[in-house]
Amino acid sequence: MDGRDWSKFLLPYQQAVEELKIKLKSLRTELKARDEYAPIEFVTGRVKRISSILEKAKRLSVPIDQIETGIEDIAGIRIMCQFVEDIHRVADMIRIRKDLRLVYEKDYITNYKDSGYRSYHIIVEYPVQTSLGSMPVLAEIQIRTLAMNFWATIEHSLNYKYREQLPEHVRERLRKAAEAAFALDREMSSIRQEIVDAQQDFEEKSGI
Amino acid sequence: MDGRDWSKFLLPYQQAVEELKIKLKSLRTELKARDEYAPIEFVTGRVKRISSILEKAKRLSVPIDQIETGIEDIAGIRIMCQFVEDIHRVADMIRIRKDLRLVYEKDYITNYKDSGYRSYHIIVEYPVQTSLGSMPVLAEIQIRTLAMNFWATIEHSLNYKYREQLPEHVRERLRKAAEAAFALDREMSSIRQEIVDAQQDFEEKSGI
Amino acid sequence: MDGRDWSKFLLPYQQAVEELKIKLKSLRTELKARDEYAPIEFVTGRVKRISSILEKAKRLSVPIDQIETGIEDIAGIRIMCQFVEDIHRVADMIRIRKDLRLVYEKDYITNYKDSGYRSYHIIVEYPVQTSLGSMPVLAEIQIRTLAMNFWATIEHSLNYKYREQLPEHVRERLRKAAEAAFALDREMSSIRQEIVDAQQDFEEKSGI
Amino acid sequence: MDGRDWSKFLLPYQQAVEELKIKLKSLRTELKARDEYAPIEFVTGRVKRISSILEKAKRLSVPIDQIETGIEDIAGIRIMCQFVEDIHRVADMIRIRKDLRLVYEKDYITNYKDSGYRSYHIIVEYPVQTSLGSMPVLAEIQIRTLAMNFWATIEHSLNYKYREQLPEHVRERLRKAAEAAFALDREMSSIRQEIVDAQQDFEEKSGI
Repeated sequence: MDGRDWSKFLLPYQQAVEELKIKLKSLRTELKARDEYAPIEFVTGRVKRISSILEKAKRLSVPIDQIETGIEDIAGIRIMCQFVEDIHRVADMIRIRKDLRLVYEKDYITNYKDSGYRSYHIIVEYPVQTSLGSMPVLAEIQIRTLAMNFWATIEHSLNYKYREQLPEHVRERLRKAAEAAFALDREMSSIRQEIVDAQQDFEEKSGI
Repeated sequence: MDGRDWSKFLLPYQQAVEELKIKLKSLRTELKARDEYAPIEFVTGRVKRISSILEKAKRLSVPIDQIETGIEDIAGIRIMCQFVEDIHRVADMIRIRKDLRLVYEKDYITNYKDSGYRSYHIIVEYPVQTSLGSMPVLAEIQIRTLAMNFWATIEHSLNYKYREQLPEHVRERLRKAAEAAFALDREMSSIRQEIVDAQQDFEEKSGI
Repeated sequence: MDGRDWSKFLLPYQQAVEELKIKLKSLRTELKARDEYAPIEFVTGRVKRISSILEKAKRLSVPIDQIETGIEDIAGIRIMCQFVEDIHRVADMIRIRKDLRLVYEKDYITNYKDSGYRSYHIIVEYPVQTSLGSMPVLAEIQIRTLAMNFWATIEHSLNYKYREQLPEHVRERLRKAAEAAFALDREMSSIRQEIVDAQQDFEEKSGI
Repeated sequence: MDGRDWSKFLLPYQQAVEELKIKLKSLRTELKARDEYAPIEFVTGRVKRISSILEKAKRLSVPIDQIETGIEDIAGIRIMCQFVEDIHRVADMIRIRKDLRLVYEKDYITNYKDSGYRSYHIIVEYPVQTSLGSMPVLAEIQIRTLAMNFWATIEHSLNYKYREQLPEHVRERLRKAAEAAFALDREMSSIRQEIVDAQQDFEEKSGI
């Protein structure tokens, strides 16, 4: 239709998502096996559908032959954490990896979107080994708490239903829900701090 | 140690968990493929560890040779939903199944625990086909929203850390977090209702 | 095109294949865990493609609205064994299952096809639990040795390449390969017998 | 027992096996999706058990603190091919990879063992990314036909049963079985050649 073979186009991206999922899940397994706290709750991944890629290319005015560099989330990985504080630890663990190259980061935790969206994004370049040789692909790694993810899941299905034209009623409700998700994360962080303090108290008293 | 071969004891429960996970996940796949709303977000499962089974047997005074009937959650399945309203639809879909038998239900949504715990539990009897013949095992299916699950995950890891002896400080914080999770679910339900109303408005106006 | 929604048609068959694969694999896991000999080497499964179903329906003169009963291998399961003798043990383990109903059996081991094809087929009816209720589907379970499977895999890819029109040269070669596979199975069976005899000798001498 | 924490010792090897399995399986998926012949039939992997590692260390006189370099098959990957000719194509595809480093190769196809064992082994160094940083591990990749694998599977279970002390009777039978497996591979190769010749004939006649 437009000179590209789309069925084969997605192959390296599918491979990147499969490999990154396995690799990031193993971080959790490894830390659990070492009886250390694992800041990763679970990991999911997906490849963007061709129709969504073409829509996004049109919206961002990316020429069809520059999609590989112009659209960064064809391969998408999502890492869910229990506490907001975990997000930075996970980002650190990605930054030290030798099997990928950091391109740039977007901090939607500190600077959350008007809609209420919060998440930490890291764009990486990941080399996929194909039968024709090594091939670098871009991937977007999103790191967020369970509450942020919960909210984003629902926003996504609403946007899908309303085709990005959310009525003001719904938009307002979503903002309130985002605040409730925010409040939940804050409560959770305070519990986390309580635990850290409690442990320090204990260690000071026992003179460790 | 106590006359039972524990390594083989868990085999039918592991089988039940594997099969029920696959079966319940396929409900989601099926509904998505039919372009219908899927009330199931994701499904997880686990088999209780022998040490936890023995602890619980002691706590509940269940004799070792009656563990199969006295402890109902050796095989555990968890189904996560987006909205509180989805929980009842999922329960209905379990009640009509012909491959398991309902034993009883516990509604911790309406009657939530003091700790803040909310979830809907269905105890089922599921026949596992082994090389020695058919063998019924009990399994507990927990149905909850993402927010309920989020809270429960954290409560569980705190209880594990403090060995069920949560300090009052932490207990109080957990209750506040439960309220925040509750508020998030309420906001989400109101969005859901907004959508249903909006669709009805639309259909009335267009005379469908 | 012909009044049926093919994308949804395959759903219960996919579900049946997923469930039967998990269930039959667990037989192996179970026997291994009990330190017993497991007659199952590995299990695979596949759903026939729509195009192949339509071709077969045409070839067998099955009307489009009777495909569910007229074509028995839309859901296909394959169980691989080490020894020819294992095939009958696996068939027995399928016959005693309470979660499926035997329809009929075809013994292509004793009566192998002219092409050289050998395999044991069991047609079963398996009830799938969908969101709309219970629904029985037919499935074909093929049981064969690794050597039979090896030969069949290659015959299948040749038939696919030549569109069932194998030149006589190739057909003759395939028959010779089938004989070689047959010889391999015979050698393997003789090893198996050697082992059984050796164990009896040992037990007789030591007076067990 | 001997100053090493064995439960954590296997972690990077498990990770290497998981990642290499996913990566090598994707070669098959990729080639199939490109409608090219895939020389890989299936891929399996396993991590050696601690007891087997210690036995092998003793047998080869490898000191406990040099196991990582002295034993090369703690992480083991097996790639099964249809034709003997495929083995070399798969070896080539491994040699060009940028995500691992070749250590050395052992050609048990040309120089098969007295027992009848045939297989192509490639020892590689694969860098695993852990939470503590990058860590290179050795892995053994075995490439073999389905018939070679079939024979090796049975030899392995016999050796396990007889604890490497195979009686001469059984050893002789195994050698005969190896010849039968060899004959099967030869027949298969001749079919493969027949196909290549047939295609050339066709192309010459039609003047392509």
